[in-house]
Amino acid sequence: MKNIQGIAASPGIAIAKVYQLETPDLSFEKNVIDNPQEEIDRLDKALEVTKMELEQIRAHTKKEIDDEHAEIFSAHLLVLSDPELINPIKDKISSHNAAAEVALDETATMFIDMFKTMDNEYMRERAADIQDVTKRLMAHLLGVTFPDPALINEEVIVIADDLTPSDTAQLNRQFVKGFATDIGGRTSHSAIMARSLEIPAVVGTKNITEAVSHNDILIVDGNEGTIIINPSEEELTAYIGKQKLFAEQQEEWAKLKNEPTFSKDGEQVELAANIGTPEDVSGVLNNGGEGIGLYRTEFLYMGKKQLPTEDEQYNAYKSVLEQMGDKPVVVRTLDIGGDKELEYLDLPKELNPFLGFRAIRFCLENEDVFRPQLRALLRASVHGNLKIMYPMIATLEEFRQAKAILVDEKESLLSEGVKVSSTIEVGIMVEIPSTAVIAKQFAKEVDFFSIGTNDLIQYTMAADRMNERVSYLYQPYHPAILNLVNTVIEAAHNEGKWVGMCGEMAGDPIAIPLLLGLGLDEFSMSATSILPARTQIRDLSKKDIASYKDKILSMGTADEVVEFIKKKTD
Amino acid sequence: MKNIQGIAASPGIAIAKVYQLETPDLSFEKNVIDNPQEEIDRLDKALEVTKMELEQIRAHTKKEIDDEHAEIFSAHLLVLSDPELINPIKDKISSHNAAAEVALDETATMFIDMFKTMDNEYMRERAADIQDVTKRLMAHLLGVTFPDPALINEEVIVIADDLTPSDTAQLNRQFVKGFATDIGGRTSHSAIMARSLEIPAVVGTKNITEAVSHNDILIVDGNEGTIIINPSEEELTAYIGKQKLFAEQQEEWAKLKNEPTFSKDGEQVELAANIGTPEDVSGVLNNGGEGIGLYRTEFLYMGKKQLPTEDEQYNAYKSVLEQMGDKPVVVRTLDIGGDKELEYLDLPKELNPFLGFRAIRFCLENEDVFRPQLRALLRASVHGNLKIMYPMIATLEEFRQAKAILVDEKESLLSEGVKVSSTIEVGIMVEIPSTAVIAKQFAKEVDFFSIGTNDLIQYTMAADRMNERVSYLYQPYHPAILNLVNTVIEAAHNEGKWVGMCGEMAGDPIAIPLLLGLGLDEFSMSATSILPARTQIRDLSKKDIASYKDKILSMGTADEVVEFIKKKTD
Repeated sequence: MKNIQGIAASPGIAIAKVYQLETPDLSFEKNVIDNPQEEIDRLDKALEVTKMELEQIRAHTKKEIDDEHAEIFSAHLLVLSDPELINPIKDKISSHNAAAEVALDETATMFIDMFKTMDNEYMRERAADIQDVTKRLMAHLLGVTFPDPALINEEVIVIADDLTPSDTAQLNRQFVKGFATDIGGRTSHSAIMARSLEIPAVVGTKNITEAVSHNDILIVDGNEGTIIINPSEEELTAYIGKQKLFAEQQEEWAKLKNEPTFSKDGEQVELAANIGTPEDVSGVLNNGGEGIGLYRTEFLYMGKKQLPTEDEQYNAYKSVLEQMGDKPVVVRTLDIGGDKELEYLDLPKELNPFLGFRAIRFCLENEDVFRPQLRALLRASVHGNLKIMYPMIATLEEFRQAKAILVDEKESLLSEGVKVSSTIEVGIMVEIPSTAVIAKQFAKEVDFFSIGTNDLIQYTMAADRMNERVSYLYQPYHPAILNLVNTVIEAAHNEGKWVGMCGEMAGDPIAIPLLLGLGLDEFSMSATSILPARTQIRDLSKKDIASYKDKILSMGTADEVVEFIKKKTD
Repeated sequence: MKNIQGIAASPGIAIAKVYQLETPDLSFEKNVIDNPQEEIDRLDKALEVTKMELEQIRAHTKKEIDDEHAEIFSAHLLVLSDPELINPIKDKISSHNAAAEVALDETATMFIDMFKTMDNEYMRERAADIQDVTKRLMAHLLGVTFPDPALINEEVIVIADDLTPSDTAQLNRQFVKGFATDIGGRTSHSAIMARSLEIPAVVGTKNITEAVSHNDILIVDGNEGTIIINPSEEELTAYIGKQKLFAEQQEEWAKLKNEPTFSKDGEQVELAANIGTPEDVSGVLNNGGEGIGLYRTEFLYMGKKQLPTEDEQYNAYKSVLEQMGDKPVVVRTLDIGGDKELEYLDLPKELNPFLGFRAIRFCLENEDVFRPQLRALLRASVHGNLKIMYPMIATLEEFRQAKAILVDEKESLLSEGVKVSSTIEVGIMVEIPSTAVIAKQFAKEVDFFSIGTNDLIQYTMAADRMNERVSYLYQPYHPAILNLVNTVIEAAHNEGKWVGMCGEMAGDPIAIPLLLGLGLDEFSMSATSILPARTQIRDLSKKDIASYKDKILSMGTADEVVEFIKKKTD
């Protein structure tokens, strides 16, 4: 097998020799021990060494990458200091005479399984964190060397079953030209990391680790998701050409950094970015973002022992607004899930958390959490161009209630003499089918819509996109999705309101022509997708695509739509 | 507190004194024992007595109620004979020196918790079965008398925290005039049982067991969900009047048993019933059903150790078709959930099973399960007026694939010389928003639609209706739901196809005028709702309601819709 097809996770083409990142053998014999205190001492020693090592990786990451990625290791260090993890391990040693390895393994497995069965990405990532950090701890207990990708000192393509957060953080861009993994998808941690490091990557190949050996030369095509093992001279020449073309394309993109976004026929749209922290803003500006279309505020609430204070929030919002200047910043209020992702809130476990007590549903019943966020936003509003957006709105009553609380807090602030901007727009995410269906009714009351396609597609197709058995039903180009998007846009424009989109679909080269034709006003995406999107839109005629609108909306299947739009925009 | 409000679970008004059905004290001390064999013998003895008792209750139920309800106790007997339950109990006794009570309690709790966290009603009911049967077994182990409602010999209203399947099965209609429970909802087991026994009932009162004492007189109003404790003379007189009115109403209803269903302005619709087994058909005919709008075939697959054979299925379908004669019978193909409800199929556990690998999704990937069902249906088709319906269709491709398999099996049968009806209609459930949105595209290819509101509402509002925290979002009258229903009906009628509805909404007195006005052709509901619905429809003008259609579809909230329709049809 010479060519392997995976999922294109990060664009670009890399050509280099293989570096196999192998997980060390962490197996051990399940012995009962005589002296619990000795085991506890061994554990403490291993904990100490592991923490020191993590401190070093954190410092390295902070220096070589950025603060945000370094935070991953702060989270790991927190895990290692968490008595809720460490005490049960020690208890197992002292009360069951378990060896430290056994106690660690059993306790970690329990926590990992618990977090894994929780129902959103954050919690599953936390499971990955615990796995990552307890593996490192186990290696130190066993006296086994843990792989250290930071030591790579020649140009390579890293091959692994999967890359843990600590693996990816240690990758040195100077030497690591690309990577490929057996597992993972476009939204897995390693894929996201590859895009922010701008390293070409292919994930989900299933068997790359088995297919390559130590001295192989690989081509990793992160645009197409292809890997070529030991390419022929011809293939090498072809891909070096492609590499050059890609570099030229990137240069072309860069020229558009400070340009507005116009279609070929002169229609303007806004290209904005999705961010999670104030540190992301520089990336947005570097990539030519015309605004923030989605500021996810969840990170402020996570990895903490208690709620963030109003001031902490104010500072974060102010920082984003100030950095963006006049450019619009759409802040989404807390979209916390229906499982216990915030330990300090003690939310109930649910059978179908995607259909559960989330986001605005939670906030409206927990005003003590909601009001401080709204106050922080209102106070920060004077520092820029703020727009506030509520997530998971399913009924008009919810929007009215959320808006009333905002108005109430605004009045309190004003009566306290605090300044609040008088031009804050208040809108909603359209991510629940009911809201899309009666967008006409909503359009009379909201200032704007932002279509959240990740959830909207999931609910409209009744398919959990994280569930591999039904992920084939996650179809952004399904005519039902396009019809709902069209309903929302028409409803908004009839009332003189604007419509954005902040799901992954907004940055997808196949969806972009469709959305442009339907009249979408704002496209919010990963910062790195903005310049390619601007380039693409400059070549598209909005009127041309709009003239096919009825035809497209009457199609029966996603395949028909894709085939048609590819032909029309080729 | 004199009046208590609960959930109206079964219609009618009952007046009688309280009978408190108390759960006996099943507590015990957690002793470690010396002689495991003695404990195993005690367990075996208790098992034997419990089985004998269950055999008696089964016989009693078969005689006093019907075969179907007697089946509950066959299921209980199966539980007690299941080595997967009994062996772990015995293991605990022999290897941990646990007392029989401890071993039973721990094992049962484990199984109950496991089934409870599974994600559909069937499995949660199985948890209730295990709880019910193991409590009885525990009582025998402890030598405690278990309450026996079959012994009630005077007119009473039974009050309990909850009624187990065995409690309800033992209720003697002659003496038990009504019941009220602390917990449960309209679709809980005890509520369903009350409706089929035609005993007035109120469930979910939260505290009725605490609020009443032994000699109280109660009025249970199963129409309004109200309970009055020790009513005044005036209240008694009023409720005796209501009771009489209700009895008169029932007589009125009965007169319409063999009548077709016409609105006041002469528009005909069809009132059909939802059934689960061939035994339900007599109830449908007794209640004036004009067809079966939904035959759920899951029961054929459940409570078994392996798949039903093609012949078993053929016999069940044939029986239903023959009993119904010329009347239409819509059979839904297997709608099995995304959790392990059929042990022999070993389905994966999912994080959001309502958005998972269910129904047609499962069948299309498991043709060895799907094809025998289709063959059985095709073979049975010559015995009546069969229509086949696929559940959970989200894309046209799924329908085309399912239809192609059916055509393939039909051709095989014909080439084998087996007769197959040439007039079988093939339709789909509309229960996923995508399908409702592009109903126009589907209407060109299907013979009919049946709107499954239970799921459609759940997905459209992104709210699990079994989840109490968000069940307020389960809004049948939400304008988005009505707009989707309207889209489906218009699309079907444009292509000359018919539209039914088989969710709970179809039998709901508030929804009926709305659905009539939107042009629904077939209403499929619980058999006992058919005559009240027919009575109601005879008083409604379809044209009148249809003239408000645009107004209703433009409303913003469910409350507005309800207020409007109540006023217009008062």
